[in-house]
Amino acid sequence: MSPETVVEMKPIGFVRSPYRDKAEIPKGPGAEHRAEGTLEVRPELEAGLQDIEGFSHLFVVWVFDRSEGYDLVSAVPLDEETPHGVFASRSPRRPNPIGLSVVELLGRDGRHLRVRGVDMLDGTPILDIKPYLSSIPAETLRRGWVAGAEERRKQKGRTP
Amino acid sequence: MSPETVVEMKPIGFVRSPYRDKAEIPKGPGAEHRAEGTLEVRPELEAGLQDIEGFSHLFVVWVFDRSEGYDLVSAVPLDEETPHGVFASRSPRRPNPIGLSVVELLGRDGRHLRVRGVDMLDGTPILDIKPYLSSIPAETLRRGWVAGAEERRKQKGRTP
Repeated sequence: MSPETVVEMKPIGFVRSPYRDKAEIPKGPGAEHRAEGTLEVRPELEAGLQDIEGFSHLFVVWVFDRSEGYDLVSAVPLDEETPHGVFASRSPRRPNPIGLSVVELLGRDGRHLRVRGVDMLDGTPILDIKPYLSSIPAETLRRGWVAGAEERRKQKGRTP
Repeated sequence: MSPETVVEMKPIGFVRSPYRDKAEIPKGPGAEHRAEGTLEVRPELEAGLQDIEGFSHLFVVWVFDRSEGYDLVSAVPLDEETPHGVFASRSPRRPNPIGLSVVELLGRDGRHLRVRGVDMLDGTPILDIKPYLSSIPAETLRRGWVAGAEERRKQKGRTP
């Protein structure tokens, strides 16, 4: 595949979320994502959900459909003073506008998955859903500039 | 966005991996992915890697470019007897051919990221790279049919 090849994708469904506006979504890695929402899969793809009920957590790959263009380097809400590379951050302004979330599966009703932990806007197109199978142990994770920025926030007495 | 809207994406780079053929890649969630490889980001996007060195692990979103078509329900290597829904498995034959891997970042040399844990074929197109920031604690994970299939394999005396 050449770097110029275009890969075409179509939504497999849409997110129903309490968030209508970006400003409502808690920002930064310290933000608690406890909001409940629904992943609505297209009727003709419902069979693809078979046996998904057994998983406690899912990866959701989705589209930042209300973001246009990208910045290779930019400041983000957690660290407004120092710009970071787009691939070292979760900025919505990415070369490919792909979002990735981990949600907890609360229940399934046909083609509707009730989930906790949505950080997407209502109506967000979903590209894929995958089972979450294993975790990197927290003690082996290094979290780069994010760890430093959270520490500085704490020292300033702000909630991270 | 309508369900028929097509989202167009272009590779941000390519994977260099020791695997030339699907048969060489260890399969199933119990498989150990220790292979080393390189994520080669396009020269014009190199600035987007700024500060990535600080993270121990990365998410890589990529394209199953040697897979065509999809099955909503199919048997997979870990459990050859019982078919499962595509969104409850990591099957390559997905409505959108998106792969997701977690890799350990070993080092960076310009636009090349040396990583451990590649399970992609050599030349695989990369759509996005994101920092891995937090884990779901292992004790809270339920792993659906995967847990049962691994248990049955163990009882049969096969390596899971």
